[in-house]
Amino acid sequence: MRDFSSDRQWLALNTVTVKSWSLEQAIDGCARAGITAIAPWRDIVQRCGVERAAKLLRASGLTITCLCRGGMFTAADEPGRRAAIDDNRRAIDEAAAIGAGSLILVVGGLPPGSKDLVGAHRQVRDGIAAVLPHARAAAVPLAIEPLHPMTAADRACVNTLAHANDLCEELGEGVGVAIDAYHVWWDPDLPRQVARSAGRILSYHVCDWLVPTRDLVFDRGMPGDGIIDLPRLRGLVEDAGYAGHCDVEILSAENWWKRDPDEVVRICIERHQSVV
Amino acid sequence: MRDFSSDRQWLALNTVTVKSWSLEQAIDGCARAGITAIAPWRDIVQRCGVERAAKLLRASGLTITCLCRGGMFTAADEPGRRAAIDDNRRAIDEAAAIGAGSLILVVGGLPPGSKDLVGAHRQVRDGIAAVLPHARAAAVPLAIEPLHPMTAADRACVNTLAHANDLCEELGEGVGVAIDAYHVWWDPDLPRQVARSAGRILSYHVCDWLVPTRDLVFDRGMPGDGIIDLPRLRGLVEDAGYAGHCDVEILSAENWWKRDPDEVVRICIERHQSVV
Repeated sequence: MRDFSSDRQWLALNTVTVKSWSLEQAIDGCARAGITAIAPWRDIVQRCGVERAAKLLRASGLTITCLCRGGMFTAADEPGRRAAIDDNRRAIDEAAAIGAGSLILVVGGLPPGSKDLVGAHRQVRDGIAAVLPHARAAAVPLAIEPLHPMTAADRACVNTLAHANDLCEELGEGVGVAIDAYHVWWDPDLPRQVARSAGRILSYHVCDWLVPTRDLVFDRGMPGDGIIDLPRLRGLVEDAGYAGHCDVEILSAENWWKRDPDEVVRICIERHQSVV
Repeated sequence: MRDFSSDRQWLALNTVTVKSWSLEQAIDGCARAGITAIAPWRDIVQRCGVERAAKLLRASGLTITCLCRGGMFTAADEPGRRAAIDDNRRAIDEAAAIGAGSLILVVGGLPPGSKDLVGAHRQVRDGIAAVLPHARAAAVPLAIEPLHPMTAADRACVNTLAHANDLCEELGEGVGVAIDAYHVWWDPDLPRQVARSAGRILSYHVCDWLVPTRDLVFDRGMPGDGIIDLPRLRGLVEDAGYAGHCDVEILSAENWWKRDPDEVVRICIERHQSVV
């Protein structure tokens, strides 16, 4: 494994970890902390203005690991699905404008009122296929992120790396996977599926699973505060040839989002060196 | 599919659904409602006294689909694992005494302080193997219940039906699976894995996945109130040859556990006829 502890060049700050910061503040915060890579979310890029964001990010010298996030392809009707496809084309344009390494796809759950999981899977596949030519033309790889199965109903109905790998193989060039330790750590099939992802791992995210977990979405832990064997997972990912950044992405309404973002960044750096 | 709506002979009341009832009250409640099968939890059997519980259940004429639950094999040290094995032998004896169709195993999560998921998997396999001769001698089948992946850290580290099937094939005669709709509905591999379970499905449980889900353990829904396509799942299970009962098992601290148990039973019967 690479020696992360020797420097912080492989650490990327996912901006949701410092949710109260604007893009400008996040760029400045990275500079203050000596962080050289960032993974912005679309809301703060849009609030900044995409052109201005692109200019600021270019000037900062930061690597843009990925843009979070496109997806949400599932909808109750055809106009809804078309709107999602249009929005994903815009997300691809934004990712191209800021020079992001990939666009993360959180694919969407069951449409409101639906119990048709197989149909939702089909909508996701069709949605990605519909935007893929645009992504290829813009040279923006699409990173399918399998989310934890507890999000299957309302956020993402692709819940295993196996399913994401199947989609990549069906859809072909321009589609890969984002592996987030939080979403996949429990999977007994993980070693086999990470190996199968070789050559298409576009993004690697870390946080930690807390015991107990008090909320299905907003109670993720700082690396080291939970029970995920992060070095094991990093070993799997690196054995599969991944040599990119490690994005620290923590959704934490009751803890980390309430703290001073500079303190949060400092602790991210410490933990990245000691436990990731 | 069988016509569940024609009668209620395939409905079993899992006693945790009416958590405030003693075993005696649950037996009487089933009689009042015309329910002919029950799945008791160990705590109320023990509170009643195992011998007395066996006598009351026999006199009631109820079918005992399963005893909930053994398992919890994982522990931080050898004495802890030995204690778990001893407790599972007692659970097997209790299941035999009351004539339960199987003993449900909720296998246990990561031991306190551990991040070793593979080691926990091994402890589970070794624990089941250790009690299996006793179960075979007592003619009590062991039903491995894969629990939802959100329980992997603190309740059960067997989280897919694939993993449970693997264990059954490794351990052999006397071990099968319990399929609970709540825990497996999200799995894209489910049709294949249910088919693979043919001949070893010992128990089938239903409740529903609520949107949103507010608690990782105690916020399960009444069948029909959530997003699980229960008829599809029942079709898969019946296609695999399962012809046993359907246990309604609802853990619901903020809703169903606060209601009058007779009302809960009445609604279970209605929903069993209309949506299961």
